[in-house]
Parts: sequence; C-alpha cells; structure tokens
Amino acid sequence: MFEQLGLIGCGLMGGSFALALKRAGLVRRVVGYSKSPSTTERARQLGVIDIEAPSALLAVSGADLVLLAVPVAAIESTLKAIRHLIDPNMLIMDVGSSKRDVVDAARRVLKQDVGVFVPCHPIAGREVSGVDNADAGLYGGRQIILTPIDRTLTTKLDKARALWQALGCEVIEMSPEAHDAAFAAVSHLPHLVAFALMNSITGQADGQSYLSMAGPGFRDFSRIAASDPQMWRDVLIANREEIGRQVEHFHRALEELQHLIATGQTDELERLINRASHARANWRVSPSAR
Amino acid sequence: MFEQLGLIGCGLMGGSFALALKRAGLVRRVVGYSKSPSTTERARQLGVIDIEAPSALLAVSGADLVLLAVPVAAIESTLKAIRHLIDPNMLIMDVGSSKRDVVDAARRVLKQDVGVFVPCHPIAGREVSGVDNADAGLYGGRQIILTPIDRTLTTKLDKARALWQALGCEVIEMSPEAHDAAFAAVSHLPHLVAFALMNSITGQADGQSYLSMAGPGFRDFSRIAASDPQMWRDVLIANREEIGRQVEHFHRALEELQHLIATGQTDELERLINRASHARANWRVSPSAR
Repeated sequence: MFEQLGLIGCGLMGGSFALALKRAGLVRRVVGYSKSPSTTERARQLGVIDIEAPSALLAVSGADLVLLAVPVAAIESTLKAIRHLIDPNMLIMDVGSSKRDVVDAARRVLKQDVGVFVPCHPIAGREVSGVDNADAGLYGGRQIILTPIDRTLTTKLDKARALWQALGCEVIEMSPEAHDAAFAAVSHLPHLVAFALMNSITGQADGQSYLSMAGPGFRDFSRIAASDPQMWRDVLIANREEIGRQVEHFHRALEELQHLIATGQTDELERLINRASHARANWRVSPSAR
Repeated sequence: MFEQLGLIGCGLMGGSFALALKRAGLVRRVVGYSKSPSTTERARQLGVIDIEAPSALLAVSGADLVLLAVPVAAIESTLKAIRHLIDPNMLIMDVGSSKRDVVDAARRVLKQDVGVFVPCHPIAGREVSGVDNADAGLYGGRQIILTPIDRTLTTKLDKARALWQALGCEVIEMSPEAHDAAFAAVSHLPHLVAFALMNSITGQADGQSYLSMAGPGFRDFSRIAASDPQMWRDVLIANREEIGRQVEHFHRALEELQHLIATGQTDELERLINRASHARANWRVSPSAR
C-alpha cells in the first residue's frame, strides 16, 4: 500500500496505472502533473488523479511512489526537474518502450541515488492515446519487463515486482540491453514496417483506391500503424542501433523471399512460407494473457 | 436459383461457398470434387456437398454453376480437365487472389467458350484452411471483385453479380490488371512482409526468446503470416510483377524512415509517422463490412 503516487504524465499509460492502483486499493491518493494543464485538469475531472500539481517537482513532493509516464525522450529532463525532491523512501518507475537510453539518463541525472529507480516496460498499449482512454484494466494479464542495473536496490526491485504482480501482471526481469534487442525485433521493427507500408501505399497515385479494397488481413496487419506518432518517434530514435540491426535481418529475409518469387523457385518459396506460417501458428501472446 | 453446383476444391473457400449457397436457398444440389478423396468424403459427411464426384470432369457434368476453388496455379489444369463438358448454359467462376494469370489461363484453355467464365476474387479468408473450417458466413458483408474481360458474356456477368449480392457481398468490377496492382499493394505485399518478418525473427539465435515477449501489437501484425503456404506460394508467383513493384515502393518508404532514424531527424520522422498514423486511423475495412 502506497500513501501517495506522484504521477508525471497523465496520458493513456499513466492514467491507466493510476486507475489500476486505485481499483486494487493500493494507493491512498494520486497527485498528478502533465505538461499540458488541460490534461492535468481532465485527469482530475475523470477521477484518474485526486490533486493537480502545477509542476513535476510538486507532483513528487510527499510521494512514496513516482511513475514517469512521459515519452522516453522526456525522461532525462523530467528526472532533472524532480531530482531535488527524490528521497531514499521513494520508488520511482517509468513505462518506456526502450530501456537502455532510459537507464543511461537515470544514471546521468540521479547519480548515487539511481538505486531507487526501477526501469519498467509494461507490454500493454492501445492505438488510442490520452487520459480519456485511460483504463484500469490496461495492464491486467500483461507482461511487464523490469530492467534493473547493478546499482538498483533490491528492496526497490522487490517492491516494484510485488506492485505489478498485484495489478495482475506477469513480471519478467532482464538487462536493458537484452530488452532493447528483443523489442527491436518484436515491437519496434513491426511498427516501423507498418508505418512504411502505409506511407508506401498512400504515396502512390492510386493509393486511396487500393486502400478502399483492403480487407481484414490488412486491417490487422496495419493496426499498429495508427499508434501515437510522438511516442514512436522517440522509441525509434532511442533504440536506433538495435532497430538498425533488425532492419538488416528483415531486409535479408524479404530479399530471400523476393528472389525466390522472381525466379519462380516454387518449392523453396513454399518451404520458407511454411516456416513462417508454422512459427506464427504455434506462437501465442504471452502466457499471462491467455 | 441454380440446379446444381459443381464444386471443384472443397476447402475453406469452396466449402464456405457451398454452405452459403445452401443457406440462401440458391442451389438444389452440390456435387463436389477435391484432389484428395478424403477431403471430398469429409465434405459430404459435413453436408458441405451432397454427392462426391470421382473427378473434376464428373463434378461439372450436369451443373449450371461451377466454382473453381483451387489454388491459382491449378486453374489451368482444372479448366483443361473440365473443358469437354463446359456448355453455354453454365456459369463458371473462380475465387483466386490473383486475376491476370487466371484470365490468361482461361483464354488459353477455353478459347471461344471463355465468355462463360467470370473471374472472381472474394475479399474474405481466414488463417485456417480446410473443409472443417468451412463457414456459411465467410462471404457475408465482404467485397467481391469481378474482373470480366472483353469476351465475358454480359448475361454471365449479371448472373454472377446477382449471385454474390444474394450472399450479402458488395460487388466491385475492374480489369484484371487493376485488380492485381491493387492487391499486390494491400494484400500480397503485407503477406510477404509478414512471412519475411517471422522468418527474420526465428532465424536469429534469440528468436524464440524474443517471440515469447511479443505482445498484442505483434499478434495482430503477424496474424496473416499463419496463412496457407501453398495458396500464398501460388499467389506470390502468379502476381510477381506487380508485387515486385510494390516491394520497391515499400523499400523506399522503409529506407526513408530508417535514414531519418539513423540521422536523428526527429521532426521529419514524426511528420512521416504522423502521415502513416493518420492514414491508418482514417481507414476502415470495406463499407459493406462496417
């Protein structure tokens, strides 16, 4: 049970966290801050937060739990804004989709206090954003990746783990580097590819006509292309090295298929499609979400 | 109302068509043939067909409606097998995902009789195949593309249009060439990309571990990778020229994004993601499926 959550960033991710914590009876009050005052006000009107803070620093004041639910590119400036009120009794977490850059920023800004910070990435999200879409059930049944570093305090890590488990999450721990490699492959590259595919079609003279004939397969494939542009801009740049590696892997796999198609090598083409089809047919979204 | 449907290919597409026709009371009996005798037998057991035919030719005998629900690569040999029993009272249709190669095959085999053949592509399907998954509702609310050629008889085209409309489809007509260009963009390329992405991940040493962390975005994006390998092998090869063009468009769009990421051009990157996100957010699957 926490006395006070200091919520910095009252969007979809932050707002849903506050609502989930409240629903689980794990927090007494939520003090929230968003860059846009109208978002902060809306969060209070919706009951997502109890008190509006006029600054990130004041949202942290008196908190024993702090969630940084801001774009990954804003983590460093946010930590700078709050560092004077960080104390050893706090647990600070983020929800960013890339972790090495977040950890690097935390080391730079928090220095010897970095142990209170537990880097988190909940594998949850939607194609809509904003506090109006905040949902107490967003995290339930989802995986959450914690990426502690050598200086992370065991007590803070234990507390973070227990908290997410209490929200119904399956908690996984790994290094920030392993996290970024995995998510470049299964999340960041698919988003990049989906953005590229939409732009590839709409950039053609007949693109709109083509789109009018697209069916349910296209609908599901392209769904993630509607994701929040600012958030994805930041994630793609933050994790650009791993994403570059994944783009190369993908290029090779696509070129291999394209070569077999162009040269009419039906047997080998079927073998490779078969491999993809089997891999996908045997895959299931994380066990906790079953 | 048709007296007898000659169904060649009793899989998902063919079986669903037979069931839909029966449910709508549009056919008196269905005579079916599949390459595998066990499939034909299963189709009869399930009530998808009424009579098992021992050959494609005998499935056509006495039919006033014939559906070729075989892979596009098998259209030519199937037409050859049945041409001696084709008569002017028949309406013959296919359900292939590529149309230029199908039309070419029909011209070659049927010659002066090609007018009874109406090339069709229903924008419907599932990631499971086989007669056990046949579903009378598969086509309802979906688009169907008819790609008549100059020699297609108006009476046959009218009959085909009325038939699909009676099954609840929205009927669209265009040339085989326009069809193949559009579906290379919105269906064939996405499938190719999804296959490549699965193979790209599973081909890496940590691929299985990466997959275990994939979330709902990946689930939807990769769903079409589980599609039927034989069918997609044939479609990709049949429409390879248009697909080659779409791969080039896509390569350029991906490289443009990748360049902006690698060089940290945040504003331009956000602008391009924004374009993709808006295009996708404003898109809806065909009006008839709303």
